[in-house]
Formats: sequence, C-alpha cells, structure tokens
Amino acid sequence: VLERLLRGLGGNPPAPASIRKARATIALCQALLSERGEVSGARLASEVLAAYRSLDAEALEAFFDLLVDEFSPDRQRLFRAADQFRQDPSPTHLVQLQLAAESPRQELFRRCNLGPGGTGVLLDFRRRLLSTLKIHPERTGIDADLVHLFRSWFNRGFLVLQRIDWRTSALTLERIINYEAVHQIQGWADLRRRLEADRRCYAFFHPALPDEPLIFIEVALTKGMSGRVQPLLDAKAPVADPLQTDCAIFYSITNCQEGLRGVSFGNFLIKQVVEDLGREFPKLRTFATLSPLPGFQQWLHSEGRERMSPPLAALVDAGDLRASLAALSESSPLKTELLRLATWYLLKAKRAAAPLDPVARFHLANGASLERLNWMGDASDAGIQRSLGLMVNYVYRLDAVEENHEAYAKDHRIIASRAFERMLRRVRP
Amino acid sequence: VLERLLRGLGGNPPAPASIRKARATIALCQALLSERGEVSGARLASEVLAAYRSLDAEALEAFFDLLVDEFSPDRQRLFRAADQFRQDPSPTHLVQLQLAAESPRQELFRRCNLGPGGTGVLLDFRRRLLSTLKIHPERTGIDADLVHLFRSWFNRGFLVLQRIDWRTSALTLERIINYEAVHQIQGWADLRRRLEADRRCYAFFHPALPDEPLIFIEVALTKGMSGRVQPLLDAKAPVADPLQTDCAIFYSITNCQEGLRGVSFGNFLIKQVVEDLGREFPKLRTFATLSPLPGFQQWLHSEGRERMSPPLAALVDAGDLRASLAALSESSPLKTELLRLATWYLLKAKRAAAPLDPVARFHLANGASLERLNWMGDASDAGIQRSLGLMVNYVYRLDAVEENHEAYAKDHRIIASRAFERMLRRVRP
Amino acid sequence: VLERLLRGLGGNPPAPASIRKARATIALCQALLSERGEVSGARLASEVLAAYRSLDAEALEAFFDLLVDEFSPDRQRLFRAADQFRQDPSPTHLVQLQLAAESPRQELFRRCNLGPGGTGVLLDFRRRLLSTLKIHPERTGIDADLVHLFRSWFNRGFLVLQRIDWRTSALTLERIINYEAVHQIQGWADLRRRLEADRRCYAFFHPALPDEPLIFIEVALTKGMSGRVQPLLDAKAPVADPLQTDCAIFYSITNCQEGLRGVSFGNFLIKQVVEDLGREFPKLRTFATLSPLPGFQQWLHSEGRERMSPPLAALVDAGDLRASLAALSESSPLKTELLRLATWYLLKAKRAAAPLDPVARFHLANGASLERLNWMGDASDAGIQRSLGLMVNYVYRLDAVEENHEAYAKDHRIIASRAFERMLRRVRP
Amino acid sequence: VLERLLRGLGGNPPAPASIRKARATIALCQALLSERGEVSGARLASEVLAAYRSLDAEALEAFFDLLVDEFSPDRQRLFRAADQFRQDPSPTHLVQLQLAAESPRQELFRRCNLGPGGTGVLLDFRRRLLSTLKIHPERTGIDADLVHLFRSWFNRGFLVLQRIDWRTSALTLERIINYEAVHQIQGWADLRRRLEADRRCYAFFHPALPDEPLIFIEVALTKGMSGRVQPLLDAKAPVADPLQTDCAIFYSITNCQEGLRGVSFGNFLIKQVVEDLGREFPKLRTFATLSPLPGFQQWLHSEGRERMSPPLAALVDAGDLRASLAALSESSPLKTELLRLATWYLLKAKRAAAPLDPVARFHLANGASLERLNWMGDASDAGIQRSLGLMVNYVYRLDAVEENHEAYAKDHRIIASRAFERMLRRVRP
Repeated sequence: VLERLLRGLGGNPPAPASIRKARATIALCQALLSERGEVSGARLASEVLAAYRSLDAEALEAFFDLLVDEFSPDRQRLFRAADQFRQDPSPTHLVQLQLAAESPRQELFRRCNLGPGGTGVLLDFRRRLLSTLKIHPERTGIDADLVHLFRSWFNRGFLVLQRIDWRTSALTLERIINYEAVHQIQGWADLRRRLEADRRCYAFFHPALPDEPLIFIEVALTKGMSGRVQPLLDAKAPVADPLQTDCAIFYSITNCQEGLRGVSFGNFLIKQVVEDLGREFPKLRTFATLSPLPGFQQWLHSEGRERMSPPLAALVDAGDLRASLAALSESSPLKTELLRLATWYLLKAKRAAAPLDPVARFHLANGASLERLNWMGDASDAGIQRSLGLMVNYVYRLDAVEENHEAYAKDHRIIASRAFERMLRRVRP
Repeated sequence: VLERLLRGLGGNPPAPASIRKARATIALCQALLSERGEVSGARLASEVLAAYRSLDAEALEAFFDLLVDEFSPDRQRLFRAADQFRQDPSPTHLVQLQLAAESPRQELFRRCNLGPGGTGVLLDFRRRLLSTLKIHPERTGIDADLVHLFRSWFNRGFLVLQRIDWRTSALTLERIINYEAVHQIQGWADLRRRLEADRRCYAFFHPALPDEPLIFIEVALTKGMSGRVQPLLDAKAPVADPLQTDCAIFYSITNCQEGLRGVSFGNFLIKQVVEDLGREFPKLRTFATLSPLPGFQQWLHSEGRERMSPPLAALVDAGDLRASLAALSESSPLKTELLRLATWYLLKAKRAAAPLDPVARFHLANGASLERLNWMGDASDAGIQRSLGLMVNYVYRLDAVEENHEAYAKDHRIIASRAFERMLRRVRP
Repeated sequence: VLERLLRGLGGNPPAPASIRKARATIALCQALLSERGEVSGARLASEVLAAYRSLDAEALEAFFDLLVDEFSPDRQRLFRAADQFRQDPSPTHLVQLQLAAESPRQELFRRCNLGPGGTGVLLDFRRRLLSTLKIHPERTGIDADLVHLFRSWFNRGFLVLQRIDWRTSALTLERIINYEAVHQIQGWADLRRRLEADRRCYAFFHPALPDEPLIFIEVALTKGMSGRVQPLLDAKAPVADPLQTDCAIFYSITNCQEGLRGVSFGNFLIKQVVEDLGREFPKLRTFATLSPLPGFQQWLHSEGRERMSPPLAALVDAGDLRASLAALSESSPLKTELLRLATWYLLKAKRAAAPLDPVARFHLANGASLERLNWMGDASDAGIQRSLGLMVNYVYRLDAVEENHEAYAKDHRIIASRAFERMLRRVRP
Repeated sequence: VLERLLRGLGGNPPAPASIRKARATIALCQALLSERGEVSGARLASEVLAAYRSLDAEALEAFFDLLVDEFSPDRQRLFRAADQFRQDPSPTHLVQLQLAAESPRQELFRRCNLGPGGTGVLLDFRRRLLSTLKIHPERTGIDADLVHLFRSWFNRGFLVLQRIDWRTSALTLERIINYEAVHQIQGWADLRRRLEADRRCYAFFHPALPDEPLIFIEVALTKGMSGRVQPLLDAKAPVADPLQTDCAIFYSITNCQEGLRGVSFGNFLIKQVVEDLGREFPKLRTFATLSPLPGFQQWLHSEGRERMSPPLAALVDAGDLRASLAALSESSPLKTELLRLATWYLLKAKRAAAPLDPVARFHLANGASLERLNWMGDASDAGIQRSLGLMVNYVYRLDAVEENHEAYAKDHRIIASRAFERMLRRVRP
C-alpha cells in the first residue's frame, strides 16, 4: 500500500495525520460491515458518512487505496469457488461463485445508505473517485461496484419526472442555474424567462434525493422549427401562446450528477417529454433538438483539413473567426463549402464505426434522425469556437424511433433528411 | 428442458399452449434485453409484464425453466474470465469476472422495472418462484438474482416509515387487515380500535409501492408491562389516555411481502419505532414485545418429552388442553413445571447454536432480552395450541441493544432477567 | 329571560347549575368580544369552544336565550341610525345603519373561529339551534346571523371538489357511510363496491374541515340509462369497464351538514361532476339521475285520492303493497293508471306554483328535465313505501340547463320528455 | 350619474367607449345576481371577472359609479323595514331590516368568487377602489361591503401559517422580494441570506390564494438583543448556529395586500411566531422587534421643535444629517438630548390619546412593551431620514401581553423599561 500511496502522490508520502484519518474511517467501515453493523447500522453509517466528509484530499487518497486493499473480494475464496463451479457447474456453485466474486464494498456501500443523506454522499464519493481513475487504474474495481449499485438504485422505474417551473422550490431552481452548462443561465431573470408559458423544463428526480435534479431538459415551444438558439435564449423575448405553436425544440439537456456518469437517463427523458408534450399540445407536429456540433472545429483542424479548399483553410485559421464568418455573403462558396464539410463531419467522420461527434452519437443512438443544418445557429463566442456557429436539428418521431435505433445499432446507419444527403454528394471526396 | 418440465410436473407434460405462451414471454424478455430494449425499454417492459400476468400455472412452470436455461451466465465466458483472473488477478480482470458471473436475468429484471407496476410484479414473481424451489432446486439461481436485486432496491435508506391510523387510505388499511397473521383483524371495527389514541401502528413503505406496506408493527400503550394479549385485542376496551401510559407493548409484527423473504426490515422497524415513541411520549419507560413461543408445543411432544413428569405428560397429551390448563390452581406444581420447561425451551433448546424458537431467534438477534414469561398470555385457541397459552415479553433497551446483540452474535449468549435464570436452575436436567 | 326559559322548557325551570354554566359561557363570549379578545382572541376562543362543548341540553337552552338577550343589536342605536339615514341618506349614514343593524353575534361567531376546530363547532351549534327554532321563533335572529356567516364562509369559490375512492382516508369514508341516507351503505364491503371502476363518488370539502364532506354524490357508469336502482346497489355485481359505458347515473346525493341547511351546493356539485366526467369519458352521452318521488304515496292518500279509480284505491289501501304491485301484469290497466297518476303528481301537483315533490323541485330548479318514469325502479321496502316503487330519471344537458332553469324560474314551466306529456294527456282530469 | 362622472374626472367626460364597457360589465353583474346566476354562476362569474379585467382606468371609474348607483340597498324598502321594526321590534322584523340594509353588492361580490381567481380579483378591486375614496367619498359604501366580506373570508381561523425558506416556490419568494418595503430585499442573494439557518420568515396564506402571502415577518436569531439592523441585513454575514442563540429579533413585518387594509393579522402573526419559535428553540429568552420611529424626524420639525436646544435644532436643520450625527462623540450632550427627545416622542407625543408614532401604536396595542432605544440602529439613508438613525426594541413577553394590552386599551398606558422612564424625567418640559 505504502508504495502505491507514494506513487499516487507523485513521490510525496501522505502526512501521517491523513493516513490516521483514512485508517479511522476504514475501521468504521469494517464495523459497519460486521455483525454490529446489522443491529446498529443506522448509527454506524452516520459515523462513516461523517468521517468521510471530514477527509481532506490527501486522506481521501489514502482512503481510496485502503478500500482497494481491504474491501476487494478474497482471492483464495474466489479461486476455490471458480474451481468448484468448473468441476460441477450447478446452480448452487454458480451462486457461490457470484457471492465470492462480489466485492465486500458493495455491501459496504449499501449499508452506508442507512445513514442520513447516504445516497447523496455516495454520488459525491464516486464523483471524486472518477477524477483519480486515470492515474489510479487499480481503483477501477471501486468504480465498477458503484456503477453496479447505481444501475440498481437509479433504475428508471424509480425516477420521477417533474416539471420545473416558477412554482418549483428555489433550492431546486438554484441547482438548475448552477448545473446548466450548454447555454448558461445568467441568473434568476434568465431562468424565469426559460420557465414561461412558451418554455418547458422537466427533470428526473430520485425519491431519496427530492430536491436534487439528476438530469433536466429545456424545451421551447415555437412556430416552425427553430434554427437559431439566440432568439430562444433572449430573456426579453415576448412570451408566445403555447397553444399556437407547432414545434417543440429541445435546446438543452444537462446531466447534473457527475457521480452518475455512465448511468444514462437522457434517452428516457426525451421520450417521455415528447409523449407528455404531445398529449398536452395535440397541435405539436415536430419534436426536434437544436444541438451543437461540439467536435467540428477540432475536426476541421485535424482530419478535416485535407478536405478544405485553401481559402476556407485560411478563413478557419484566421484570427477573428466571427468577423470572417459574418463577412460571408448568403451565396458565398465558402459558406456552402463549410456546410458541406459539416455534413461530412456528421455523416462520415467516425470513431470506430460510430459518429465522431458525441452529440450525434447520443441522439442517433436514441433513434433520432438528422434533419437540418443551421448557419449561425449559435452565434455566441462558444458557438463560434466549437462549431463555427453551426447547429443541427435532430428530429424525434416516436413512430420511427425504434426502427432508426435498430438501423443505427446494427450497422451504424444514420437516418438523415434528403437535404443532408444531397449536400453530402457534393463534398470533395 | 423438456425432461425437466416432465419431472417438475410429476410426469404430465405441459400443454403445448402453455409452452407456447411461456416461449412467447421469453421472446419478449429477449427483446427487452436486446439493443431494442435500450431505446424502447418502457414499451417492451410493459409487454413483458402483461405477458407474465397472463401465464397460467403450467405456463409459469415452463417460463421458470426457460429462465434457467436461457438467462443464466454463459459458462464458457465465465470459465475464460476465471482463468484470466487466475493468471493475472488485476482489477480489470476481476471486473470482467464479475460481469461474466452475473446472470443476464439481473439486467432483465432491472429492465422489467421500466414497465408500470414493475416492482410489484417482480415481488409477486419471486413469491411464486419461492413456492417451487423445493422441488426445483435448479431455480436457486433465479432466486439468488432476485434477492440480490431486492437487497439493493429495498435498502432501508429508501424506505419510508409511516404511521398507520384512521386517516390512512382504505386501500392500505384493507391490506393491513389482510396481511395481519399473528392476531387476525376481525374487520374494520377491530382495525379501528387498533388505531385509537392508545394504540399505534407503523409500517415501512417503498416509494415505488406507495400503498403497499412492506412490514408493519402494532403497539399498545399501557400502564405496566402487559402479560396478556386478549385485553389488548378487545375491540370494546375503553381507550386510555396515552399520556398516562408508561409502557409500549409490541404485540404484533407482520412481514407483508412473501416476495421479500430474507430481505429483513424488522430490526430497523422496531428500533425506529422505539425511538419515535420515546420522543413523542417521554414518560414511556418500557418497550417490550408480547410474543408467542410458536414451537413450544411441538418441542414438548418431541425433545421436551423426556423432561416432563408423567402427570404433566398426561396433561399435555389429554384431549381438552384448554380445560386441563384452566383446572390448574395458581400454586399447582404442574403449572410451575410447565413454566420451567418453557424457560428451558427458550434458553436451552437449540437449532445448531441458536435458539430453537424462531421468535426468540429474531428478537435476541436484534439485541432484545428475555424479560418475563406470562401464564395464559394468549388464551385463544391458537395460543393454547402453539404454546399452551404462554407468552413472553422481550424487552428492547436502546442503550443495551448493541451489547446484547454482540453477545448473542459471538457466542449465542442470551440475556435474560433474573426470574428466568432462577427458574432455569430448577428444571430437572 | 327567566319567563322565556320557563316557557321553553315546558314549565320546568332549568336547574341553577345549568344556568350558571350558560352564564359562565356567555361571560367568556363577552370577553372574546371585548378589547381583550383582540389581543388574546385565540386563547379566549378556545375557552369559549370548550365551555360550549361542556353544556348539557338544559344549559344549552339557557345559552341560546342569553345569546338572544345579550348579543342582539342595540335597539336605540339602531333606531337612531335609521332616523339619521332617513334624514340624510348618505353613504356614510347607510354604513352606520348597516353596522347598527348587524348583531354583535356575527363578530362573536367570527371570533369563535379563532379557536381550534371552531368552524366545525359552529356547524354543530347551528344544527342544535335549528332543532329548537319551531318552539323558539325568537331565536330566528341567531340563525339568520349564522346563515349570513356561512354563506360567506362556504362560498363555492372556497370549496374543493374531491373524488372519493378507495384511496380516501378511512376517516372520511366512515363519514360517507354514516351520512348516506338515500340508499344506505351496508358497511365497508358495500362502500367498496360503490367506489369501483364503474362507480364514482365526489364530494365538496372546505379547507378548514379537511376530512369532513359537505355534500357528496354517487354515480354509476352504465350502458343505457338505468331505470332500476337495485342492480346499481348490488355489492356483488360484476365491475364494468367504464370506457364501454355511455351513461352516468346520479343515484344518490347527500347533504352531510345539517348545520348548513339552506346553504346549497347540490347544483354546483352536479354540474361540475357532469363536466369532469364528460372530460374523462368523452363517450358518455347521457347524464341522468335515478330519483325517488318521496311524496307520491302521501299525495295519493290525500289530494290524489279523488283521481284514483276504485280498484286502484283498493290496491293502494291494501295491506301488502309489494305483493299487490308484483301481482300486476305488464299490461295491467292499474299499472298504467298508477304511472299516469305519478306523471300528474310530478307535473301538476303543486305547492304554491312549484312542484309538490321536493326532489322534482331541486332538479327542475337546477335546469334538469323530466325524462322517464320507471316501474319498480326501487323495489326496496322504503321505495315501495315512499312511491310504490316508482323512480324518475331527470336528465342534465349542460347546453340546455340554463334555458330550462329560466323557464322554470320565471313561470315554473317544467321541461319534460314527450313520453311524459303523452301520459299526462290521458289522466282523468 | 353623468354629473358625478363628470365631477369625478375633473370635468373631462369619460369617453363613450369606456362608458359602454362599464355598462356592459354592470349588465353582466346584473345577470350574475339574477335567477340565471344561480344556475350558471360559475360561467357568469368568469365573464364578470374577464370584463372587469379589461376595463381601462376611465371605464373603471364609470364602473365604480354604476356600482354605487345600481347596487346599493333600495331606500324605500329600507325605510319600510326600519318603520316596521320600530313598530314591532321582533326578531323577524330585525332580520328583514338587516336584509334590507345589506347592499346587493355583497351578494354580487360573493358570486364573483365563483369564477376562477375570483378572490384575488376582489382584492385587486378593493386596492384600486381605495385609491379613489378621497375624491369619491360616495364610494365608501362599496368599500364597507368589501371590508365586511373580507373580515369573514380572511378570518384568522382560515389562514395558514407557513414558514418561508429556500424550499418555498420561486413564485412566492419573488413576491416576498417585491412586497418587502421596510428593509428592501436586494435580489435573490439577499433573500437567500434572510432564509438561512439563523433567520426565519413566516407568512400567512389563505387557502384560495395558495402562492400569495398576505403578511410576512422576518426574524433574526441572535446572541443578545440586537440594536442595529445593518448587521442583520448583511448578506455576507456568517451564519450563526441557531441553537446557540437566545434572542429572536423581528426586524421586518410587511402587509402584502393593500386590498386587505384594515383587516389586520399582524398581531396574530407575531404571537404565533413567538409561540412556535419558543417551542423550536427553548433557549430563546427574548422576543423583540427592531423597529423604526417613522414619524420622529417630522415631529422634530413640528411639535418637537420647541423642545430642542438651539444647537440641536441647528444640527437637525443642517444639510448633511448623516455627517452631523456621525460627528457626535459617544458622550456628546446633543446625542443625549436626541435620545431624550425620542423617548418623549414615543411616550408623550400623541394623536388623540394614542401614541403619535404608528409603529408604536401597533406594537403597544398588541401588548408589547418599550424596551430599548438604539443609537444608529438604522444607518441607512432611509433610517437617517426617518428617525435620525434611531431604532426601538419592543419586547413581546407572552405572559405579559394581555395585561399590557389592557392597560393600553383602557387608559393608553404605555409599558416601558426603566431606562425609558429615567430618560423621560430629564427631558425639558
């Protein structure tokens, strides 16, 4: 352990006080897992949570290492169980092997949940663990245990969809403000506009974390499919009558809990919101996202470079990208070239067989289709930086979602509108 | 499979229609587990639940068998993962082994929970499975998967303690009436009396099953520690002022969900109720159960027989036990002998190292102590049948519970009042 | 006062202890109305409520009399204010006259409401007062004050419509059982059937009396307009799929609070339920009552007698009415005669200009129309007794209700189906 | 009418369109009051509310006038009822007189409440009416009707006390921000600090206006009785542990509804909060306000002038009051003189027999006592302007409140601490 501790901290051995604190916390964990834990679980769990909360960064590192060393499965027992099962692969031997393979950490984490606020602490614990995994691959096992647990606990069947509006508690709204990362919320007045009659916001909650959104989505109800996000974000924009709209634009979706990375709800959330909105507003005909192409700029500067004409390359490399883009006329060939390259990027640029663009991967895997590419869809600095101002509408048609998904899941086939396909044909190969 | 089906049904092959239904349900399960399940989980889960609900007894048997055959871990993959881990017991290989050891059923059950009412259906599913395990030990694996899942889902940290009173919904109260098994509730008038000011009833609920009690406990607030249960159950008894009482008698505790067998909450429930009542009524000084000795009569007729005097043996064997017991005078030596034997039964009769009596096992393992043995504590027919009318008070002292539990857990040492120990000394060895 | 007390009690002077109690309660009332009441209103109101609750029948009588004597408006002040207003009918003088005319009781009752449960006590107070008004007409003023207050407090705008179902609290359901007077509820099993999927029950509640229904209505969802109530009340009847029904039958409506007599909600309740059901089940085409003719039998024996043929009069006077009616064949002229007389009773028998039948008065004033007369619609003993088993369907058509109501309100014109009118023509004049 | 309309609008006759709108609204009011209103009350009330909402300022004026003309009591009927009662002052005649004296407006307003949001509209209606009463004294009658109604509706027994904290809905919190007038709330961050663990905020709500506070009070839990308000308002101040405090300072109380002027809840609110806080924090020993002397500066410039020494008068008249006050040393005789004058102002300056200062009138009438005068208690510009920075602590002792109130109510005797009385003796007479 010590060796590993040294390595992990770049050679600086942890202070003895930190190690003592980590050891004391581990001792409480052992008590919680013991016989005593069965009868005094709630009390011991509270103590474990309090001890954990008091760990500084250094002590936490030591604590992670001790969790690896002292709460992993017993290898000898596991070897024996594996041998037994190989000799006689009976159901009983399988169950024994499963039990031997499960880390004691799983039960430890389950018992931590007996303390007040335990669920939230475990989410925080994983968040902090994740940030250390790169330099501490040996901690993967802890993470696997947490993911396994969270997949059970945060089962969609237990989540509650709630509308977020101006009647929601300030506690939750404040978190919405803090979590929103795609199109940052500039304070309470901005938030208020996003909750008016022509906007909608929905979040999933878990009963054990009643004020804590897990994921939320922001929707604008509009006339026609919006291609530009700034009008939707304008806090001063007049409020439309939602009954007169025909399109629901999903302009932002935010995973709030870093500690739930890999436990995904976005797919469920979008679909349930599509269903609910469809019931509330039978006149809505289009359900579409307005999404960035987060990796486009970077791709242009790497693999995409060879597909660019010299003038476009010059523009992309120029200092003031916003000014250069603004200078392009409606019919500028450079503009056309950029749109074609973005089409190529979305349809042809791959990571393994899947689209390179992470947002495309998400929506296409959910069964959405590529509908429209929008010039200057996001004219903010971030939008210009990320994707030269381009934005995409992915469309969700409930009756096509399953088929689209299967086409994508089997062959990574991407369903796109004709406009996309026409555009693609003209990209220089 | 077919062979097994034949065996399971005592030689009668299941009707083809049943097999077809079971197969169709399994096909839906496979779809739910597939890629499609990821995007259409909610819909497919609903279909699985509906298909399951429509299975008749025969089809259910076939369905169980198919779940064993087609959703158990892939042995070859498991063997390989075990080998790999043995050669290089790295965290990554451990995680792979854990994944290979986990039945696909676990994920299947998790996905079933996406459908409406899924949690309740899974509880029902296990209830029906359990009743077949004896003749189908090969189904142990299904059960192990469900227990593993339920341990996560029904974690005490997610349960909500609710007081049951006359303001509770009729839906829940009706279930309380139906579930109560220890001292049956004779309709609504009886229930109403059990919810008056000098009675308390508390239950644990899971957020996904809001009207469905998991376990409940009934408490009488009394002056002095009650030794007889009939006065507590008398629907006509006058209601006492709870502020004038000094003792809380736990006279009934009921596990409602057969499907949660082995996932235990009783310990948590009793302790939380002791804490809550102590806060509400600071004058309460004693928290005690009034419990049967469910195995006493049976023990007397087997191992206990040799310890009985001939006259007592004659009494026990006689036809009208109630009359014989009633005829005993206060100072009758037979009465004394019976009390001594009950003491012996509670303290010395063992199954392995633990008490033979299941109720004693439960309360002693929770950290309670044996306080008093009560003659004619339960004069009902059932009470006479089970334990010749005897009842025990187990006392819960929050400050002693942990120590008692550890003594019991380590050495199966039983903490009992002096009266018990005095009595014991006089039993003929 | 004393004289009046003597009179009221039929010559027996009230016991001095009762008078003392009444006086003590009045003294508290005076304190509550005084300056002190402004600052210690809640405390004093509690004391008044407690004192009131402890009054026995005799003391209550004395208390009523003292309320008349000591909390009526000051006549001299009232005379002066009237004179002043007559001389100068200015707004200020009008306000002064209004203030002088208002009984101090009004403010007393308002302040009583500061105590816990005050609203409920005031309802109970009026209930008890009402039963004495006939022999104590001088108490009319107390009643008028209460009615005035309750008209404000129990304004429909403050009432909450709630569906009553099996999820409702037992406390409220028990009251529903006790209050239902039209078709008595035979215990919990009967109630449960009336709350199944093909039945509905709705009640109005006031926020200050959250468990106390003010009025409730019971509805059966049926195929075709039911003419017989027994099948609707059959606790064993199979539950129909409400989506397959086309008719909502209001088979019982109950005013729960005698203390709210004259403060009417039935009209609002029926209409809101018609609207809500129409939204929930768009296939419902008929909203009709199934109502008794409570005064028919009595009318037959008085004014109706001269219209009966001798054989019918003999039947009506006979001992076993049920048997006599059962013996009538489908085409019996006596049956036809009875139906015609009932038609006459509903359409022509009057009290002043309004229908003699109280149920007809209620529904016709609400804008319903007479639709159908049903032979043996209520075969219970009560049904035979009241109206020889006959029942009526009144139909509520939301688009005709207002017009019907106005026709009725202006000229007491009754809207009836053609069948009724045809029948009427043949009654012997 | 026309004449009055002309007068009311200062000679400019209202535009015909406005008069038409007002007349149309009145016609709807008449329909609502008619027979039709009984059966279609909800619909007609909605129409009245909508029509009212669409009235512009001019039309509203015309509407007020029509309400005076057409919905006041019928004078002839009132005269007759008065005569009848004078001739025979029976209970029946009294009731008839009361009915004749009541404006039809009362019933009109009650029926308006049948429409959605009716209660809120009526509050708004009175708010707008109040602002016209000075130039339209003939509208007093409308106001009297509304006050009478609101006294019934907003009876303390129907109000719900709710704690306002960070879990409260943003809708309500936003209103708290907007309503607070004493110590303005500078946005959400300021509000958040006022809702931390060492602060409390409580409001009364009416069930028909669930998001709309009627009155609220802000409390700081402190160690020792605070004499300065700025530290309490400091949004950056560290949060104290409320369990370590011994004093609750009521530093702001706000009536939110102008439309409820004269229907007072402040007294109830303070007392209930004192009780609730006392239960939650048994260590609290002092419940005191920190209140301005809103009329002090004005009094100094009028009646107080003759009591000032020339140097103090010079200071008070000087331009930069803040600087002048700040320049005074701790022992400056001018400071002492000012404190003495403030004492005189609080104890001796009168309006009729009551204290001149409105805040003093409120708290003293509630039974509070004068405890301490604080130099520079409010150093804000407003505080300097109003009362030269002085603030007072009024203390609420629940066991003295009633006695204090009576002393005040009977003889306008003011209970003050010794310090006040000592100070008073030294003021130049």
